[in-house]
Amino acid sequence: MTDTITHDDLVEAWPLLDTTERLQAVALLPRPEAEDLFLTLPTRDQAELVVNMEPAERRMWLRLLAPDDVADLLQEAPAEDRAALLGLLDPATRGEVTGLLAYAEDQAGGLMNPHYARLRPEMSVAEVLAYLHRFAREHSDGVYYAYVLDADLRLLGTVSFRELFAADPLQRVRDVMRPDPVTVPENLDQEEVSKLFAAHHFLALPVVDALGRMKGVVTIDDVVDVVREEATEDIQKIGGTEALGAPYLAVGFPSMIRKRAGWLSALFLGELLTATAMGRYEDEIARAVVLALFVPLIISSGGNSGSQATTLVIRAMALGEVGLRDWWRVIRRELASGLVLGCILAVIGLVRILVWQSVFHAYGTHYALVAATVGLSLIGVVTFGTLAGSMLPFVLRRLGFDPASASAPFVATLVDVTGLVIYFTVASVVLRGTLL
Amino acid sequence: MTDTITHDDLVEAWPLLDTTERLQAVALLPRPEAEDLFLTLPTRDQAELVVNMEPAERRMWLRLLAPDDVADLLQEAPAEDRAALLGLLDPATRGEVTGLLAYAEDQAGGLMNPHYARLRPEMSVAEVLAYLHRFAREHSDGVYYAYVLDADLRLLGTVSFRELFAADPLQRVRDVMRPDPVTVPENLDQEEVSKLFAAHHFLALPVVDALGRMKGVVTIDDVVDVVREEATEDIQKIGGTEALGAPYLAVGFPSMIRKRAGWLSALFLGELLTATAMGRYEDEIARAVVLALFVPLIISSGGNSGSQATTLVIRAMALGEVGLRDWWRVIRRELASGLVLGCILAVIGLVRILVWQSVFHAYGTHYALVAATVGLSLIGVVTFGTLAGSMLPFVLRRLGFDPASASAPFVATLVDVTGLVIYFTVASVVLRGTLL
Repeated sequence: MTDTITHDDLVEAWPLLDTTERLQAVALLPRPEAEDLFLTLPTRDQAELVVNMEPAERRMWLRLLAPDDVADLLQEAPAEDRAALLGLLDPATRGEVTGLLAYAEDQAGGLMNPHYARLRPEMSVAEVLAYLHRFAREHSDGVYYAYVLDADLRLLGTVSFRELFAADPLQRVRDVMRPDPVTVPENLDQEEVSKLFAAHHFLALPVVDALGRMKGVVTIDDVVDVVREEATEDIQKIGGTEALGAPYLAVGFPSMIRKRAGWLSALFLGELLTATAMGRYEDEIARAVVLALFVPLIISSGGNSGSQATTLVIRAMALGEVGLRDWWRVIRRELASGLVLGCILAVIGLVRILVWQSVFHAYGTHYALVAATVGLSLIGVVTFGTLAGSMLPFVLRRLGFDPASASAPFVATLVDVTGLVIYFTVASVVLRGTLL
Repeated sequence: MTDTITHDDLVEAWPLLDTTERLQAVALLPRPEAEDLFLTLPTRDQAELVVNMEPAERRMWLRLLAPDDVADLLQEAPAEDRAALLGLLDPATRGEVTGLLAYAEDQAGGLMNPHYARLRPEMSVAEVLAYLHRFAREHSDGVYYAYVLDADLRLLGTVSFRELFAADPLQRVRDVMRPDPVTVPENLDQEEVSKLFAAHHFLALPVVDALGRMKGVVTIDDVVDVVREEATEDIQKIGGTEALGAPYLAVGFPSMIRKRAGWLSALFLGELLTATAMGRYEDEIARAVVLALFVPLIISSGGNSGSQATTLVIRAMALGEVGLRDWWRVIRRELASGLVLGCILAVIGLVRILVWQSVFHAYGTHYALVAATVGLSLIGVVTFGTLAGSMLPFVLRRLGFDPASASAPFVATLVDVTGLVIYFTVASVVLRGTLL
């Protein structure tokens, strides 16, 4: 009912606005609300705003961010703008950001904040609280833990804000701290970092180098983003595309085509083998056209059961529920699953053929043999699809690839070709002397 | 080298141990380490231990947990053990746990902890710090924020521990707090809760009822689990199974078969339509067996492009990047993508047919018409697959179903039947008067 824009309105409308509108909207907001909004935006949107601002304005916005967030923003900004943006920082922050940029974006070092509350073991709790009082005023990022380091910057222990607060002010920090803390090696992959957080339920974990020296802190709010990002990548790979790396509607059309056409063409080249396989059975099809009718049914049943198996195993691997050493347990389980599922589908298929035969006389005099061919092939194809789908992620991982590349369409393609061979082999045995 | 077991050894070996071994191992650990381990275990494993302990021991372990974690544990325990376990709690906690159990597990109310630091607006910062000092001693869960309530328990504002710590001790809380905090309605679905956390980067959010009265606090470490769980469910549905709801190796064989056989049979019933469709074209196949050779290629290309599109749209919806109102943008985008991708595959297919023809003379005198049929059909089938795959999640969501049910195999099945119709229709037009 008013024509002033509020923070909440803007959050609501944000995804629909283009760059110019976003800049105007942020300029219209009262300063503190604009800053709140800016701090909660995804890195991509922060970069979009800062890059498109007047040079005079950029500095102020950039300085709102913690060094790890500045480093992330720079990685989203066009390469030609990076040096100019770095130049806007004060020398100390610039040094920290440059240090962070040396880490790959998906390593613990690339996620961490180099600022943390550093304590000496002989400080008293009262001294620590006075120090944290100053530290909390200077650093807008949350302080959950303080870190006790020796003279060589090696991490001795951690102490939570809450524990300090509940402790006797005269105690020494070394007597209050938790020794032997869980630490994150600076080169650890972000997916592994997120598993550490899931296993330990901490709000922040210290990052250390190979010598045990403290480098910074990874906080759990960054990990929520990592978990979401990694799941998105896996889902997109399972669906048979490259990971988009950006929101669906934000990906340009040429880039969208590139990320899909590669896999789709590779799968198509694989599927061309089905034409070759079918070509080998051309005579059989000419003699018994009824065989051709069940080709789509047979191969898609293999593909569907393979999709199921591969997706379950990929996800179980990503969650750390299944490791390479479990391959034998998985193979036994999936062999049994494949046989049972294949039998279920075979029964449904037999019933369908017998009913159609009795109603429409659709499959000729040798309908019983045709039904037997279809039923046996279904058991074979579903069992093979299930086994192939469940083992492919193990093979990929063993070879050093991402198991999520065993996409549902990839498994389906693999199983299609084999499914045809199984089907026509069964047919040549069952129908020899009658239809073939 | 020693025969004592450590906390770290046990964490390492944990997934390989059965229930009896886990109980023994926990009993062998020094008490504080055993408690640390217990607190970091997944709820399922906590429940397994407690349920299988001597009744005399259960009480102590149960009382280590915060009320929201006890409620989660009870939901994992067999129904017949629940009342006995509830009876072990002190009356106050029992009341809280019973209250939490009334919420569905996947609602904000089911995630929240009913304990939080409650402040009156007229308290001074010094009074608050003294109160929090006591509160922190009594509650092992982290305290990140304190909540300022009026006399009717309505939430007026929040203040972070850090802010209190940096404030002047003589100020009133009402002057330090942040008014109008972001709140979570008690019935909000957990997936929406996780989006609120992703949008705001808070460590904890207050849960309120319809009247704005504070009910408890959801903390970000619970949200990490939710994000992971929801992604797992979506991935499993995209792969064409029901969500397992438990780790892969922990699901019993009969239950595993049940969760897979349902969808697989449903898809099979759908695929049976391909046999019907093929039956309608039996005469065409008999006259031109060469047509049958490309059936697997055509339908799987439609299935693969449909998988890509549906997976991208499902994930974009789950992340809130695409909403129902965006259907028109998506349809235009996917129509264009489908046409371009279809043309790419058609070109590859044409090259393949022409090369095979010139080398093997594989496709007879009318090979050019066969190539044209395959090429045109690929464009049609891939475009249709892409459109169907991208729109199905919209249709499902509009009808109130989970868009993730538009699994890759479901879309592939849908597209297989249509793909056959497209292919044989194109063939009847292109080949009329020659092969047909």
